[in-house]
Formats: sequence, C-alpha cells, structure tokens
Amino acid sequence: MNLTEIGERAKKSATQLAVMLSGQKDRALLAIAKALEENTAPVLEANAADLAQAAENGMSVPLQDRLLLTKERLFGIAEAVRYVVGLEDPVGQVLGGGIRPNGLKITKRAVPFGVIGLIYESRPNVTVDCAVLCLKSGNACILRGSKDAVRSNIALVRIMRDAIEKEGLNPDAIQLVEDTSRETAAEMMRLNSFIDVLIPRGGAGLIATVVQNSTVPVIETGSGNCHFYVDESADLDMAADILHNAKTSRPGVCNAAEKLLVHKNCARAFLPMAAERLRTHNVELRACPRARDILGDACIPATDSDWSTEYEDYILGIKIVNAIGEAIEHINRYSTHHSDAIITSDYANSRLFCDSVDSAAVYVNASTRFTDGGEFGLGAEIGISTQKLHARGPMGLTHLVSYKYILEGSGQIR
Amino acid sequence: MNLTEIGERAKKSATQLAVMLSGQKDRALLAIAKALEENTAPVLEANAADLAQAAENGMSVPLQDRLLLTKERLFGIAEAVRYVVGLEDPVGQVLGGGIRPNGLKITKRAVPFGVIGLIYESRPNVTVDCAVLCLKSGNACILRGSKDAVRSNIALVRIMRDAIEKEGLNPDAIQLVEDTSRETAAEMMRLNSFIDVLIPRGGAGLIATVVQNSTVPVIETGSGNCHFYVDESADLDMAADILHNAKTSRPGVCNAAEKLLVHKNCARAFLPMAAERLRTHNVELRACPRARDILGDACIPATDSDWSTEYEDYILGIKIVNAIGEAIEHINRYSTHHSDAIITSDYANSRLFCDSVDSAAVYVNASTRFTDGGEFGLGAEIGISTQKLHARGPMGLTHLVSYKYILEGSGQIR
Repeated sequence: MNLTEIGERAKKSATQLAVMLSGQKDRALLAIAKALEENTAPVLEANAADLAQAAENGMSVPLQDRLLLTKERLFGIAEAVRYVVGLEDPVGQVLGGGIRPNGLKITKRAVPFGVIGLIYESRPNVTVDCAVLCLKSGNACILRGSKDAVRSNIALVRIMRDAIEKEGLNPDAIQLVEDTSRETAAEMMRLNSFIDVLIPRGGAGLIATVVQNSTVPVIETGSGNCHFYVDESADLDMAADILHNAKTSRPGVCNAAEKLLVHKNCARAFLPMAAERLRTHNVELRACPRARDILGDACIPATDSDWSTEYEDYILGIKIVNAIGEAIEHINRYSTHHSDAIITSDYANSRLFCDSVDSAAVYVNASTRFTDGGEFGLGAEIGISTQKLHARGPMGLTHLVSYKYILEGSGQIR
Repeated sequence: MNLTEIGERAKKSATQLAVMLSGQKDRALLAIAKALEENTAPVLEANAADLAQAAENGMSVPLQDRLLLTKERLFGIAEAVRYVVGLEDPVGQVLGGGIRPNGLKITKRAVPFGVIGLIYESRPNVTVDCAVLCLKSGNACILRGSKDAVRSNIALVRIMRDAIEKEGLNPDAIQLVEDTSRETAAEMMRLNSFIDVLIPRGGAGLIATVVQNSTVPVIETGSGNCHFYVDESADLDMAADILHNAKTSRPGVCNAAEKLLVHKNCARAFLPMAAERLRTHNVELRACPRARDILGDACIPATDSDWSTEYEDYILGIKIVNAIGEAIEHINRYSTHHSDAIITSDYANSRLFCDSVDSAAVYVNASTRFTDGGEFGLGAEIGISTQKLHARGPMGLTHLVSYKYILEGSGQIR
C-alpha cells in the first residue's frame, strides 16, 4: 500500500473516530490489552527475528535491550493500555464560549486533530503506546517505526487492528508504514492532505531531519541537553544528592542532567564533593579550564562542542561561572529548552532563574528527572515537546486535540 | 543589516520583554499611538511614494486602496493601538498546576513565544497591528512586508521604534526587514535559531510558499473557501438573507461565502430566490449541471476547479446535493477548513453538521462573516488560523503566548 492510500484510509477512519463515544473507544482499548496478552507468541517470534537481525548487524547491547520484548514486557504494555482506558477522554470538552450581543451562541469545543503521524526509533512499545493514546483521543494514527523493529511492529499492529475491528471499529484507525526506507519517511513529512500533525520521537538526528523537511505541522520532541546550576547560596549536600540523581539514575533519557554549572564562589567546595559522588558510576567529567584547576586528574578537558552535546551517557560537562547571569545566558544559548535546574537558597535568584531560563521545565532544588507525563500528573505521555507552539513539555491526551468553534444562530447577519 | 543580525537583536530584546511588566508595555503602546498621530507627515509622504510606484507598476485600483494611508486612517490605526492597551496581558497567567505527592510544586505559567516572524502583503496597517499585538504579549517581532509598501512600512516602524525607545524599551522589539527580495523571505523561513513562530498573512500563494518552505513552526492563516449549505428543512427566506450577507457584504475577505450547496428537494424553490437576491450585486453564478437546469441563463457552468477556488469576488459556485451527507463530504473535501454554514430547521441535521464538518468555525443559521477576532470577543486579532496545531480560528493575544512549567522543590529526587 502506498502512502497516499494509507493517508486516505486514515482520513476516512478519523472521520468516524471523531464522533465516536468514549465508551466505544474504551472497549476497543480493552480489547487491545486483552489481545496483546493472549497473543504473545507471534509477537515474541517476530521480535526474536528482529533481534537476530540486530545482533547480526552489530547493534549495541543497550540498544538490543531497548528492542527486546518479553512476555513480562508485553503484559506491562497491556497494563499501560488499561491505564489509558481510565484516563479522561479529552474530546468534546467545552473550552470556552458565550453568547454574543447579537444572540449568536459560541461554543469552543475540543476535537481530535484527525490523523497523527508518528516517526520513531527502535523501541516497539512505542508502537502500542502511541496507537493507544491516539485512539483514546479520537485520532487515527500512521506509525512509521524503524527498520530494526519492523517485524515486531507488524505483529503488534496486526493484533491491535484485529482487536479493534472485532469491536466494530475501522481497523485503519491504526496503520503501520511497513516500508521503512528513507523515502517513506520523506513522503510522510509532505503528506499535508492526510496528516494533521507529525510527531517525531527519537534521537537528535531524527528530530532535526523531520523539522528540516516536514511541511506537515510538527511537534518537536525529546532532545534534552539539561543543565544543573549550583548557585553560590546552594545547600551543597542537597546539590550533590540531586546532581547524583539527575545524572546517574537513568543517563540515557532526555531529562537526565548533561551539564553542571557552578558559581565560582562555591566551586572549590562543591566540585570535589560532586566528583566523589559521581565516581560510583564512573561518570566522565569534562571540565572547563577553571574547573580543571580544582578537579585535576578527576576530569578531562571540555571542548566547545561539549556545551551543546546531549551525551545520553555517564558523561557530565562542567563549567564555572562568575554569576547567575552568566549561568542563565549559557543555558539559554546551549540548552535544548527541555529541563534546567538551579540549586539555591536565595529567593531572588530562584525567581530570576525561573523567569529568565527559556525552557519547558525550570526547576528549583529538584532533579530534572521529573519532566515526564506521569510525574507531572498528565497520565500517559506521547512525548516531551521542546517547541513553544501548541504544547510545551510533557504531552498527554489533552495535547492530542485541537478545537473548533460551533456558532448557533437564528438568522444573524453582519 | 542581515537577517542573522536582526534575529540576534530580536532574541536579545525578547529576553527583556519576557519579564517586562504590563504597565511598562502599555506605556510604550500609548507612546506609539501618540507618535503615529503626531507624525503623519513622513508616513503620508512615504505612502505617496509607494502609491506612485504602485500606479506606475499598474497595480489595480482596489489594491491601491488597500495600500493607501490617509490622516484619518492613521488616526484609526492609532485608535486601534489604544484599544489593545485596554486588553488583558496574557503573559504570566497561571494555566494549571498543583502539588505532587512528593511535595514538588508545579505551576504552568503563560510566557511569550519570544520572537514572532510575520510575512505579509500590502496593507501597511498590518505593520502596526502586528507589532502592537506582539509587544503587548511580550514578544519581539520581525516584520517582513511587501515591496509595494516598503516605504510606508519603514516610516511606520521608525516611528514605533523611536516611541518605545523613549519609553525605555529596546527598539529592537520591533524590526522591519527592509530588503523585500524573495531571498530574505526564504531566509526568515529557516531562521530557527532566532524565530520561534512564523505567521504568514496574505493570499493563498504566500501562505502555501511559507508552509512548503519554512522549518520554523508556522501558524497557517487566512484562506477561506467557505461553504453555505441549504438543508431540505431550511427556512428559505432566512437562507436567502444570510447568503446575501455572507456573499456580498464584503466579498474580498476570507470569511465570505464562496460556495452554495443546496439539497435537491429545495433547490427548485431556493435557487431562483437566491439568484434574484444576488442580482443586486451582479454576482456571477457558476453552477453544476443540475443547478443549471433550474437557473438557466442566470448562471454559467462550473468546472471542477471551481470547487476548490477561493474567488474573493462577486462570484458564487453552486452545487445541488442529494443529502446532507453529500454536502458534508463535499465540504470536508474542498473547504479550506475556515468557516462553513448550514441553514436548517432540523435538530438532528444541525448536530450532524456541527460534529462532522472539520472546520475552525461551523455555523448553524448564521452568516460565516462572523469569523473574526472582534466578533468572537477576542479583542484584536493577528490572523485566522486554518490549521489545528496551537490555535484554530481567530487568534487574539491569548494565542500569542506559550507556557512553561516551574517546578519548586526542596531536594526531590526520582
């Protein structure tokens, strides 16, 4: 099937989904959860084939782990589907309105986008997570995963389509682009007639490619070069604890700390403490010249490119700053505008940092690791937006809808 | 000055604007209004030169009128600036938040986008309208008007910059791209490092060019191929009145009716009435074969391209449909998703139309001409979005902001 045909089918199914009652969507979601639990064999078989191919291609062990599905993981995915069933349907909510002086009644009501395109990398659970969030919010989805996971994705999508079809839904609400060539991705990015919004999920390269080439409106997600600024007035023990958590609890995710900025007046006290704490995970420290004077052999020199790099690894860039203003300027210049934190006990500095740092999530005295739909109380999340249009930060179901104005009159003319 | 330099200056000024108090922004806006009234001479002189050039280039009389500034019009523009002063500042509003179980306090607060780029066509009042809405909402703007109005725009921007500078603001909050070559427009569309959102305002060609070429997030505005569906059950007198208004009150604007769809069971009664009413403005009727059977010499044949064309003129496309479902399908296929209306006295059909027509504004028994920021009670408007991301329909000040999450902790780790 070519992309135009996929697009036409998605659009048709979106028209049906837009007016579907929550109960029917929820029954379809429960059917997906059940079917995933009852059909683990074909998925595990497909996944084993993906993994064999990946090993042959020399995929790294951590990446192979991201690709791996087990019976337990599939049950976990099914459980996550049931969790989404329990969330509130965002469709139909009245967001505003009133009666104009001429009697025209205006209602601003949430409606699905229509068709959401998703371009993502290897983890096959993303296939189910995204399809389910789209369905719950009344959107059809076109999924385009990576080549590495294509067999797993085909198996998962087949199970989901069968399940919703048995519940009376049009299976085209969930479609997978099975051809994972560059061409299909490029074509999706220009499918304006059929795709309302495109959400890329993956590494910086994928995101940049989509932003550069898509004519479909994009929600940019994910890349996180997160900063951790230790102010002159910081409680240094607290700072060391939080830094340790932000850097080492899960270094591969986008809300992990990547850079440490330290005020010059506490650098001599803090840097050795921090280095000591991070040694437990053998974190590589890449430091500016002034920090190297303090850390000595515990670090290696940072280069200019370090300041803009998201390591996603046990690596930390370190820079000493002369004042909070320098920290804010550095962050606004190099941050990916995802999550940045200050550790301080100074009221004015906490306010200045929150007002001036131009990022989706700005923290005072807490770990950047909290930037997550679940932690923010949004329920499940489809990604973390690092752009300012439409949605910023973690995106839940309420960010997967648009709205329309309904105007009810009795002959009003202008 | 090249665009990178303009972008850097805009970004710097945006940082200052983001934390500026409403009172200071309002004082700057009042200074702009006063300066526009006190400096009409240089603007009118520049405008006369633009008009002379336009006449020499053979610009049509209606377009020349759009370009024309008079003392009265300038005072009207100044009055519109004062109106914006009276509107509520959207910056800083708390849009949500709470305290998480671990004690982390989350506040979702409205913040300016930062830098807004505007690419627009000839009317010079747009220069002031947009600059003022951006300033009120704490955004710096980069304005790129058309070649036809460049002298007028330079004069207007100079006055505005001088006025806000005297009030202590950085004049780079308002910048004009004086070089109106295609290259500068193309460069703006790829200025992702400095422009947060790009809003094109103008004809379908301009909008399409920006959507196709911009890597900066775009809010698509304006084009309106608006439909008017007369249901079987319609009050035909009301239908004729509303159609007359929707088509002829201002045919050049985007919320004017462009297409008439009529249910077959009332076509024979309604079409002659409608033709009679529209004859007062010599509206050209382009009809499908079945409608031609009824209208005879009062119409000419419609071609396939008529269904997707926005005439912006005294022209109306007419098609007879067999059922409301056919009308909805036709609208969803050919509409620009701006504004579409049904005239009906049937409850179920009114609901079906509102639920199924995928447009920013869906009307029952009223003229599509109401799709406008002022008419919707939004105050001044920067454009009418025909996309679903971020804002749909008329966009006022509240649509010129994004938000950020502030997270205040006391050592929380995850």
